[in-house]
Amino acid sequence: MVVVEVTVIPVGTKGPSLSEYVSRAVEQAESSGVSYELTPTGTVLEGGMDEVFEVVKNMHESVFGEDISRVVTNIQIDERRDKMLTIEGKKGSVEDKLE
Amino acid sequence: MVVVEVTVIPVGTKGPSLSEYVSRAVEQAESSGVSYELTPTGTVLEGGMDEVFEVVKNMHESVFGEDISRVVTNIQIDERRDKMLTIEGKKGSVEDKLE
Amino acid sequence: MVVVEVTVIPVGTKGPSLSEYVSRAVEQAESSGVSYELTPTGTVLEGGMDEVFEVVKNMHESVFGEDISRVVTNIQIDERRDKMLTIEGKKGSVEDKLE
Amino acid sequence: MVVVEVTVIPVGTKGPSLSEYVSRAVEQAESSGVSYELTPTGTVLEGGMDEVFEVVKNMHESVFGEDISRVVTNIQIDERRDKMLTIEGKKGSVEDKLE
Repeated sequence: MVVVEVTVIPVGTKGPSLSEYVSRAVEQAESSGVSYELTPTGTVLEGGMDEVFEVVKNMHESVFGEDISRVVTNIQIDERRDKMLTIEGKKGSVEDKLE
Repeated sequence: MVVVEVTVIPVGTKGPSLSEYVSRAVEQAESSGVSYELTPTGTVLEGGMDEVFEVVKNMHESVFGEDISRVVTNIQIDERRDKMLTIEGKKGSVEDKLE
Repeated sequence: MVVVEVTVIPVGTKGPSLSEYVSRAVEQAESSGVSYELTPTGTVLEGGMDEVFEVVKNMHESVFGEDISRVVTNIQIDERRDKMLTIEGKKGSVEDKLE
Repeated sequence: MVVVEVTVIPVGTKGPSLSEYVSRAVEQAESSGVSYELTPTGTVLEGGMDEVFEVVKNMHESVFGEDISRVVTNIQIDERRDKMLTIEGKKGSVEDKLE
């Protein structure tokens, strides 16, 4: 299991708003069936490496269009093999230490 | 106003768990008084550039210790000057488009 | 064509040095046949999306071992479809403007 | 000493080319006097934390202009306190292992 954060940045949008493009990418996460969480700076996916990579490729692809010919996508993969890594688990372990 | 995501990674922790170190960094965000949100992959801060950079430096610094002599910290700064950028606003504009 | 920067960070090394693990990842880039450049902070690959993603997966995988059960890998994908994007082209266009 | 990679991404450019904006940021590194190296995906700076953060702020700031009201800047800080960390040292230690 991997937890992966994805941030897509369309280049050449003419204006400063990105939410129209970002929402197309999030729809790919939504329709993939993979667990995900929207954060203020990206989308966090949880699943097997191959299925998550497939979603990442689709998210990146979805941002291209008639007006967008360049996309920069940042990805952080966190993979742990000694125990199950999940979105909830990652946040929970930090929150437990904070209390 | 800037929205900044910070991810601290201590190097040389001997084991795979990072939550002890990450929680020290999040405590810096907590005690700073700056608005923040914990995500599965980092901490998102919102505020003026200088105050946020100060918190980022303190978060990075807090991870060092007797056993940790190297820290890698990833930061994404998002700054928008045509309108107020906030953690809630960034998520909200994407969520609105999704509906 | 995509230009992709990859930074692998093994978690739970005994000490602060990472070069032994990073060099295993770079060997994957080397043996893949894909064009790449070593930078102070990562490895930059150039090629088709699918072949580059395959190399990225192999680089990430190569860092795991008996002593390493967690790896964090940061990736930046830059894809441009209106013209050929290459490692040399990206650096060259900035250097031209600087002169 | 820290080694920091900076990637500036202007949002809302008319077209897909970014080199005009990126070169303005690199000029900030150049004129700062801090050691730096241009890579295909960013600029790597080497120096004390405070002086490097000052350059990073100036680089980010330089991208704003009449036509650009939003800038996304990615930063990776690598700080090591048990020995001197430098741009040359980081690349050299990996290259030595590869041979």
